[in-house]
Amino acid sequence: MKALVLEATKQLSLREIDVPQVVGPHDVKIKIARVGVCGSDVHYYLHGKIGPFVVKEPMILGHEAAGTVVSVGSAVKHLKPGDRVCMEPGIPDPNSRASRMGFYNLDPAVSFWATPPIHGCLMPEVVHPAAYTFKLPDNVSFGEAAMVEPFAVGLQAATKAHLKPGDTAVVIGAGPIGIMVALAVLAGGASRVIVADIADAKLQIAAQYEGIIAVNVRETLLRDRVMELTDGWGADVLLECSGSPKAFETLLDSVAPAGRVVLVGMPIEPVLFDVVSAQAREVTIETVFRYANVYDKAIALIASGKVDLKPLISELFSFEESVAAFERAAEARPTDIKIQIGFPEL
Amino acid sequence: MKALVLEATKQLSLREIDVPQVVGPHDVKIKIARVGVCGSDVHYYLHGKIGPFVVKEPMILGHEAAGTVVSVGSAVKHLKPGDRVCMEPGIPDPNSRASRMGFYNLDPAVSFWATPPIHGCLMPEVVHPAAYTFKLPDNVSFGEAAMVEPFAVGLQAATKAHLKPGDTAVVIGAGPIGIMVALAVLAGGASRVIVADIADAKLQIAAQYEGIIAVNVRETLLRDRVMELTDGWGADVLLECSGSPKAFETLLDSVAPAGRVVLVGMPIEPVLFDVVSAQAREVTIETVFRYANVYDKAIALIASGKVDLKPLISELFSFEESVAAFERAAEARPTDIKIQIGFPEL
Amino acid sequence: MKALVLEATKQLSLREIDVPQVVGPHDVKIKIARVGVCGSDVHYYLHGKIGPFVVKEPMILGHEAAGTVVSVGSAVKHLKPGDRVCMEPGIPDPNSRASRMGFYNLDPAVSFWATPPIHGCLMPEVVHPAAYTFKLPDNVSFGEAAMVEPFAVGLQAATKAHLKPGDTAVVIGAGPIGIMVALAVLAGGASRVIVADIADAKLQIAAQYEGIIAVNVRETLLRDRVMELTDGWGADVLLECSGSPKAFETLLDSVAPAGRVVLVGMPIEPVLFDVVSAQAREVTIETVFRYANVYDKAIALIASGKVDLKPLISELFSFEESVAAFERAAEARPTDIKIQIGFPEL
Amino acid sequence: MKALVLEATKQLSLREIDVPQVVGPHDVKIKIARVGVCGSDVHYYLHGKIGPFVVKEPMILGHEAAGTVVSVGSAVKHLKPGDRVCMEPGIPDPNSRASRMGFYNLDPAVSFWATPPIHGCLMPEVVHPAAYTFKLPDNVSFGEAAMVEPFAVGLQAATKAHLKPGDTAVVIGAGPIGIMVALAVLAGGASRVIVADIADAKLQIAAQYEGIIAVNVRETLLRDRVMELTDGWGADVLLECSGSPKAFETLLDSVAPAGRVVLVGMPIEPVLFDVVSAQAREVTIETVFRYANVYDKAIALIASGKVDLKPLISELFSFEESVAAFERAAEARPTDIKIQIGFPEL
Repeated sequence: MKALVLEATKQLSLREIDVPQVVGPHDVKIKIARVGVCGSDVHYYLHGKIGPFVVKEPMILGHEAAGTVVSVGSAVKHLKPGDRVCMEPGIPDPNSRASRMGFYNLDPAVSFWATPPIHGCLMPEVVHPAAYTFKLPDNVSFGEAAMVEPFAVGLQAATKAHLKPGDTAVVIGAGPIGIMVALAVLAGGASRVIVADIADAKLQIAAQYEGIIAVNVRETLLRDRVMELTDGWGADVLLECSGSPKAFETLLDSVAPAGRVVLVGMPIEPVLFDVVSAQAREVTIETVFRYANVYDKAIALIASGKVDLKPLISELFSFEESVAAFERAAEARPTDIKIQIGFPEL
Repeated sequence: MKALVLEATKQLSLREIDVPQVVGPHDVKIKIARVGVCGSDVHYYLHGKIGPFVVKEPMILGHEAAGTVVSVGSAVKHLKPGDRVCMEPGIPDPNSRASRMGFYNLDPAVSFWATPPIHGCLMPEVVHPAAYTFKLPDNVSFGEAAMVEPFAVGLQAATKAHLKPGDTAVVIGAGPIGIMVALAVLAGGASRVIVADIADAKLQIAAQYEGIIAVNVRETLLRDRVMELTDGWGADVLLECSGSPKAFETLLDSVAPAGRVVLVGMPIEPVLFDVVSAQAREVTIETVFRYANVYDKAIALIASGKVDLKPLISELFSFEESVAAFERAAEARPTDIKIQIGFPEL
Repeated sequence: MKALVLEATKQLSLREIDVPQVVGPHDVKIKIARVGVCGSDVHYYLHGKIGPFVVKEPMILGHEAAGTVVSVGSAVKHLKPGDRVCMEPGIPDPNSRASRMGFYNLDPAVSFWATPPIHGCLMPEVVHPAAYTFKLPDNVSFGEAAMVEPFAVGLQAATKAHLKPGDTAVVIGAGPIGIMVALAVLAGGASRVIVADIADAKLQIAAQYEGIIAVNVRETLLRDRVMELTDGWGADVLLECSGSPKAFETLLDSVAPAGRVVLVGMPIEPVLFDVVSAQAREVTIETVFRYANVYDKAIALIASGKVDLKPLISELFSFEESVAAFERAAEARPTDIKIQIGFPEL
Repeated sequence: MKALVLEATKQLSLREIDVPQVVGPHDVKIKIARVGVCGSDVHYYLHGKIGPFVVKEPMILGHEAAGTVVSVGSAVKHLKPGDRVCMEPGIPDPNSRASRMGFYNLDPAVSFWATPPIHGCLMPEVVHPAAYTFKLPDNVSFGEAAMVEPFAVGLQAATKAHLKPGDTAVVIGAGPIGIMVALAVLAGGASRVIVADIADAKLQIAAQYEGIIAVNVRETLLRDRVMELTDGWGADVLLECSGSPKAFETLLDSVAPAGRVVLVGMPIEPVLFDVVSAQAREVTIETVFRYANVYDKAIALIASGKVDLKPLISELFSFEESVAAFERAAEARPTDIKIQIGFPEL
């Protein structure tokens, strides 16, 4: 089968590769329709590794996918050929201790598309466990469905924020994940979300959504704006999505007493953290690693119209143009949120 | 001062009455602009009592109020004359055990407007503790502000529902409180709210909001519709707002495993409850008594545009027409959600 | 293999029966050392059914078991032959929606020992999934280990009680499950547990534990005793373990504002429940169905000495005397907490 | 009245000082029986300040107190002269936003005994709000009652740990607060508490309690011991009580997936914190500032015998020997947990 293969750092080829496609009793085979390009895909392309995960052999990229079921295993009940679906890219050991407790995302045995040495999904057909394949309502397009994966990260963050209806939230960082988090928090119960960044182009994309208040922190002290908007109380929830060590210096200044902080961004090195300042507010800090049990909720939010991801699809390339799609994603234009790759539809 | 006085059952008069108006150091005096008529006001008017609360002496009605600060006590810092405000009608003993624990609504010493023997607020000026008086943003009208009180009940229910972002919710009962609960749950994180009632007129009002799915349970079995919409899983949250004993017979049929049930409606007698059926799903049941610590969040949701209460104001009467307003409210037209009484503005 | 077989209602025989004993890659084979007799075993023996579960064909009884691993499947890592273990008797579909969310006990596909048509474990050897087989520390005896199953119900209830350290708890019902719940709640954070029953013999067994206060509700009004002990505030948590409809009449009288009620006992018919009384306290009600993810914690509590179950083993019969053991259990002596059946040890 | 006055850094005198003693309607007057010496008292004595709190004028020390009510204000209902009591030393504004929400400890307006410029309680009589004065059961001694304050810090930490019954906990630091936290966590639901320190003398004091496992981290890698005890899973909860920056370097190594970390110790400077490592486990971090709503629970745990603080009273000085008591406390002997000062009893 033809696939987009990362041969080595900065070497991509669209070529034939042999991938086993056995449909077990609990599996489905899916014809891929749309795949989004994620920052991690681009990172492997440019650097060949992320932390301890190193690309040592040719690996198919891509993990944000939607498509159509073409065949199902003998034990599959909730899906049938022709169903339009999207897929959760991480497959845990269902009998591990973490899985039994409901946080299968934390199972060390998870195999995750396009995390070496596991192949991704940038190819015409994939086999996947039915339990991690989700049927789409008719009014959710493949483009939106291929955004469920990054939106699921936002939803995991919003879930861990333990929002109370009407809370005021702050999101630091208006990159793709920051925007996903902001939309998830807004749909998830916040009355308003103050999004902070230093790039106006990114802030403008965020600000097109009603309920999002954009703040350029080169011009305005975030704390001042938050206190002005909350009568001096502070934000009920702050979600850090920039990964910038600098953000941590003043992170707590905008947080209300007994407020919550959710750490989504991943700083490369340990950051300086002011414990006493956190204690003075009795802040709770939550951390996020991918997601678990949120795909159905993500799809429901998109289908109901509460979350509109369509404006975030910046450009669509064909599967044949996959390498160009990655080159474009690697440019990291501030106006690009999501580059997608489309396959010929059935 | 002139006020709307309930003299005895079914006897209302708009007449002069002597009410102490001393502004203590922590109090504010407010010129009333708008008061909503609540079902409990009407119940006292028609029946002279609610449970153990009996009207034994003439009592001023009304507890859903908004207005303008005219003077403030010496210790008041967050309000000043001219501020537009709405008021929480229940005043607890701030040093009681319940208040210290954060659920001041459960303090048995609460004095609550228009709950005998405490006077309500249907008069031109009231004195109120500053701590329970909330400043309004410019874009929140007095009409909306006088709806904050009933919406706060909805918000308390939505808060106790412990919604996860994207949850599917069911609300039983499309009366004024049912609609408030549905809007609060929708703004508070649900992807969609299935509202069940037997009156089409009420369901039509609910159905005008995007995200609300109306079900007439005279025609459709609620369980069937919920299971159809949730692929057989059931609703994550069900909020009972009808108070009907009949609703309890099938209450759990629509609820998902580990789902939550919130009891808002108040059945007059004990109801039959199927414990084993609740256990089979390990359902959690929450109960609601008024509200605590939600006024600021209610105001933020209205101000941000996430919750639009304006379509729910069915008719506005002048203060001079207060008796007529109550007669209209007593008609209980299915198309009436909220009758309000307006005062001459400053 | 010889096993204790329920042939039909009230007909037990210890006889040869053919049971498949294939050890799959994720399974272990266990030589049984000790099995406890549960109220549900006795119920099937006497009545042939529990609710919708009807014994239609001969079924091996028993589900509270401990023993020694004799062989392990090829994929098993955390167990080896010779390990002393106890087993969780319910096996879910690990890929079901409920299992993925962490509450595998609610998966409708669970197969549970000695719940028809699934065979139980009263035989010399069983095959079981390694994931539901737990290694015992050296200082936990087989007798205690065979009590982990009923204690797990108590621990599930204690977990759902969301105890705050130092809470005052009430347990209604001092039968085997009531005592398990009381011990779990006491170890789980309560400062004291008030246990209510009408049988002095049962109360005396409970009262031997420091921290348990026994109340005979034939002589003392439970509410009066609770209010006396809590300065009029009420119990933070009440756990209903009697299943008696009568208990529900006054259930809420002893509960504090914002208190929690946990329903463990299973009333045969729906009970009358006073919704308004629950609302006046904003009580939260939790329900319990078996248990999930508590076995390791149960074992740790026994091993550390915080929970002593040894005094609750009322009598030990040999496997050859199994029928006599059931006859004794069927007597339901108030002084009997747990009858166990022992196998010849290796 | 005679009191122990901190005149300036390292200058203590037991001398007459004029302190207003007006008993308002909601106040009680208490004859002091016992006062514990806290690390913060000693810190003010030696350094004249803690963070932003600077002793600029003579200040009475002491905030861990128990005594006997001698008179009560006109509105006080739950206390009467002769009642033995202990007192919460922080008095919030009950109408502040934080107080209304139930976390009055976070109210910036709190006035706290012996935090400048507020006088402490090391004098024969004090006046205190009845709402923050707690009646003692007969079996709780004044010595134990004067330990309720530091134990309350432990209980706040244990409450914020959201312990599940049977959890395995780690406490880093075996100083006075570390031991209080360990005892609170053990009583609050943990099956066992692994206490880590570098001083054997401190560890021996901790290890006298059943359920506490002492680990000298000069000799043993904490992670290794924790993993050995938990079959490689890690601790469900870790409570940092050392305030040492070094502890933060390896803090997360011992924590289980989805585990919780509670920060009690107060590092003087910001510490390096590995965000990605926290995310990989989706750790939740809670922080503690004093306590709220735990005094009654602390007293109940002591009265029930679940928590025994008596072995932690290292030495008792008379009020006349107060200066010597502080000199002894300032020695910081590793075998000293709590130095107390006793007053002549009534």
